[in-house]
Amino acid sequence: MTNGAQALIATLVDSGVQVCFANPGTSEMHFVAALDSVPQMRGVLCLFEGVVTGAADGYARVAEKPAATLLHLGPGLGNGLANLHNARRAHVPMVNVIGDHATYHKKYDAPLESDIEPLTDWTHGWSRRTGAGGDVGRDAAEAVAASMASPALVANLILPADISWEDGAQAAGPVEPVPAAAPDPQAVAEVAAVLGSGEPVAILIGGPAVSDIRALEAADRIAAATGVRALIETFPARLVRGAGVPAIDRLGYLAEQAAFQLDGVKHLVVAGTRSPVSFFAYPGKPSDLVPEGCVVHNLAGLETDVVAALEQLAEAVAPGVQPRPAPAAVPELPAGPLTPQNWVQVIGALLPDNAIISDESNTSGLMLPAATAGAPRHDVLTLTGGAIGQGLPVALGAAVAAPDRPVIALQADGSAAYTISALWTMARENLNITTVLINNSAYAILRLELARVGAEGGGPKANDLLDLSRPNMDFAKIAEGFGVPATVATTCEELAEQFSRAVAEPGPHLIDARIPTLF
Amino acid sequence: MTNGAQALIATLVDSGVQVCFANPGTSEMHFVAALDSVPQMRGVLCLFEGVVTGAADGYARVAEKPAATLLHLGPGLGNGLANLHNARRAHVPMVNVIGDHATYHKKYDAPLESDIEPLTDWTHGWSRRTGAGGDVGRDAAEAVAASMASPALVANLILPADISWEDGAQAAGPVEPVPAAAPDPQAVAEVAAVLGSGEPVAILIGGPAVSDIRALEAADRIAAATGVRALIETFPARLVRGAGVPAIDRLGYLAEQAAFQLDGVKHLVVAGTRSPVSFFAYPGKPSDLVPEGCVVHNLAGLETDVVAALEQLAEAVAPGVQPRPAPAAVPELPAGPLTPQNWVQVIGALLPDNAIISDESNTSGLMLPAATAGAPRHDVLTLTGGAIGQGLPVALGAAVAAPDRPVIALQADGSAAYTISALWTMARENLNITTVLINNSAYAILRLELARVGAEGGGPKANDLLDLSRPNMDFAKIAEGFGVPATVATTCEELAEQFSRAVAEPGPHLIDARIPTLF
Repeated sequence: MTNGAQALIATLVDSGVQVCFANPGTSEMHFVAALDSVPQMRGVLCLFEGVVTGAADGYARVAEKPAATLLHLGPGLGNGLANLHNARRAHVPMVNVIGDHATYHKKYDAPLESDIEPLTDWTHGWSRRTGAGGDVGRDAAEAVAASMASPALVANLILPADISWEDGAQAAGPVEPVPAAAPDPQAVAEVAAVLGSGEPVAILIGGPAVSDIRALEAADRIAAATGVRALIETFPARLVRGAGVPAIDRLGYLAEQAAFQLDGVKHLVVAGTRSPVSFFAYPGKPSDLVPEGCVVHNLAGLETDVVAALEQLAEAVAPGVQPRPAPAAVPELPAGPLTPQNWVQVIGALLPDNAIISDESNTSGLMLPAATAGAPRHDVLTLTGGAIGQGLPVALGAAVAAPDRPVIALQADGSAAYTISALWTMARENLNITTVLINNSAYAILRLELARVGAEGGGPKANDLLDLSRPNMDFAKIAEGFGVPATVATTCEELAEQFSRAVAEPGPHLIDARIPTLF
Repeated sequence: MTNGAQALIATLVDSGVQVCFANPGTSEMHFVAALDSVPQMRGVLCLFEGVVTGAADGYARVAEKPAATLLHLGPGLGNGLANLHNARRAHVPMVNVIGDHATYHKKYDAPLESDIEPLTDWTHGWSRRTGAGGDVGRDAAEAVAASMASPALVANLILPADISWEDGAQAAGPVEPVPAAAPDPQAVAEVAAVLGSGEPVAILIGGPAVSDIRALEAADRIAAATGVRALIETFPARLVRGAGVPAIDRLGYLAEQAAFQLDGVKHLVVAGTRSPVSFFAYPGKPSDLVPEGCVVHNLAGLETDVVAALEQLAEAVAPGVQPRPAPAAVPELPAGPLTPQNWVQVIGALLPDNAIISDESNTSGLMLPAATAGAPRHDVLTLTGGAIGQGLPVALGAAVAAPDRPVIALQADGSAAYTISALWTMARENLNITTVLINNSAYAILRLELARVGAEGGGPKANDLLDLSRPNMDFAKIAEGFGVPATVATTCEELAEQFSRAVAEPGPHLIDARIPTLF
């Protein structure tokens, strides 16, 4: 006999989902018990649901397929929402299994009862409540397929406890996801004409176009042949870069930077992303970053095979033109006390081959792209949705997806506190993650933003709310408390020595890098 | 000139709200800046929104009035939802100020854009989006009044950034909350008749009736005069108990316990709470804990002055009968290695006068009520909504509300990991909180639940997901990392010595109490 939970897990495995990041409760106990009946499914325990969903995001960015999550009722899903927001903005596939009370128990409004559908709807993904044991297999297979649509999305399956425990369910075979549409020849031709117009053009690429070297090479060929400025979206889900990959700048986070990069552009071509907008509103400043009078042309949206679209465009406007791979070139190892400027050079100098960087270094990482441009080829996973607390969970998920690659978490202090228990799962799973914790004892980005929004009148109480130095956090102690070996670095020499050792050793390590704040 | 943020804070202060637990972002920078213009408002920085909302809950339970919170957009509110769920179930007043993008910025779907209303609606409270600067004062005053209705609730005010920063707003005076209804004489008379019927009756009280000694005394007088069994709801928001207070048992968490307590009862009178239901569904077991054939009588719901209702009922059926205060009687100090049975005796023996206990000790605390029944009078704040990660934030908020009372957080390990950064704010505000961290290296309650839901077939993978011992967490190190002095106790003698010292000293302390698991 097969119960609903067993049928669900068997279906997920048949559909290619082999990892489940979990933080279960009573209503999920049959799912937990069923893990032993399906050996191909790996359960990874996390101590908080924000770690669960962030890890599934990081896994999907690297594995290019969904992980499952296991979440406990509405409050458990609530705890996972912020990183689901980031996953939504990253357009990654994910299958959330949200346990609910037994169908007949709902009406009693027990203490943990809440409305789950408004929370699943909030993810702007795919959502379904399984209504009967016979539907579990079909629903799970369709959830996986839905998550792998173009663009990929977060699929939510609400699983009542009695459907989980009742016998008589059956696993279902995989459902083929809807594939990406072929490029629109008309759009390609129109953009080719724009590129030939002689007017100033920029091309902004994102989504799958920046994690696939073929698309980056196509964009670079277009730039080389036509003189247009190629740019990468500000916060890509996964960006491949480094030596051997064409070096294309990211559009700046600050509207002032973006305005400078797009100055004078009359045509903006977008592929795999949207036309850029300001992250926040600022008094008296425009929200739309497209320069006045500039026309936006959509080469290919996320429903389209954007890599093919760029390759077709390159064939049209740059036949025979070669891409320009970035040369291998790493910074000199700096010396002396750590600063916001030199710590990134240590990373650039010592970045191991084939690394994955989970970058939530925020203001402290402003100089990181330049310092790592010629480092060995690597992937960068960024904070796609702006909801902080993503960096450590994403690193965790990436390391589960790619156990043989070195994962580097560059993590700001304020953001680290949100989902700090991710460290425990790194230790538990013995993952090859080196966390460089940029400990500047401030919400430095908010100090900058306080001025940028024109609220400079902030007095001592305001500044106190942006200050993390009373008391200073000792992240080395926190990491050790969660079972991750840790060291403290205050100089470039210490950071270099500790970083080299950490990436060479198996398992996780945290470096508490004490760095003055920029702001 | 007064901007929207200044008018909002001034209105909150005029309405009696003097504390704001905050985790701000860019869209809240003008609120942060405005704190300096209203000296009566205290800003308390927390490193995670789940700490913010849990602290506001704990504050309200003790202060009996709302704190404000400051939350950053939809994801920030999302992070706070689990403890808002607990606050909803605790029926406490709270005023959430949720910053949103500027009105004109919404349409650009910037990275942090999300639907906020579905999340505020999820709290089942009061919600409003301020639509114009001129409305800020009125909206804030009405939010405070709404939160203090009977029953109290979570009020959510969505504040767009431009309304916050634009000048021309005005503070508004307080709005009187709708008072609780007077007791229904008909309901009192009907219940009095039931009590005189000679049939077996139980009276289950909750809400404001268990935080007010007058109501507990009335219930006890009724029990003394009529022989009915008085019981307290399973998870009260605030329960006053100890020496001098009538000792009334709580209804058990396990359905088996509750069934035993209600066995043979033909009439169940409820006051300030609802008729009891099982926390979860279990295969083959009833969800409704009211025995078959038992009639439920509602003396007074939460919209009613339940204290007055109980006093009127006592006057009707127990005139002249005196309540029976619990005698002062504390356990002997036990000796030897800590066990699930003896650690509670250490607490019972040494509980200081007028303490507030934030109890999230879960399975480890099953024996706590008996051990503290004759301890000096104290308040117990319990996990009202079942969403774990409440204990440390609630202790934090309680200590802000009552800085001169000793606050004792009895905190299970698994739950502690959810909102562990609450420790940092305890250190920052130098709060008198002694945390006894019951470190049993397991989700012990889930081991129990795995068996109770009939999923005993759980094999090694299932058990692994309930195990926190790989690696063991060192909460003393984690606490020190967040700036809270900490010690480790493995024996009763160590716990007693460390606990006595910690409650005598100002500021926070954490005791990492290594205790074997019951399950």
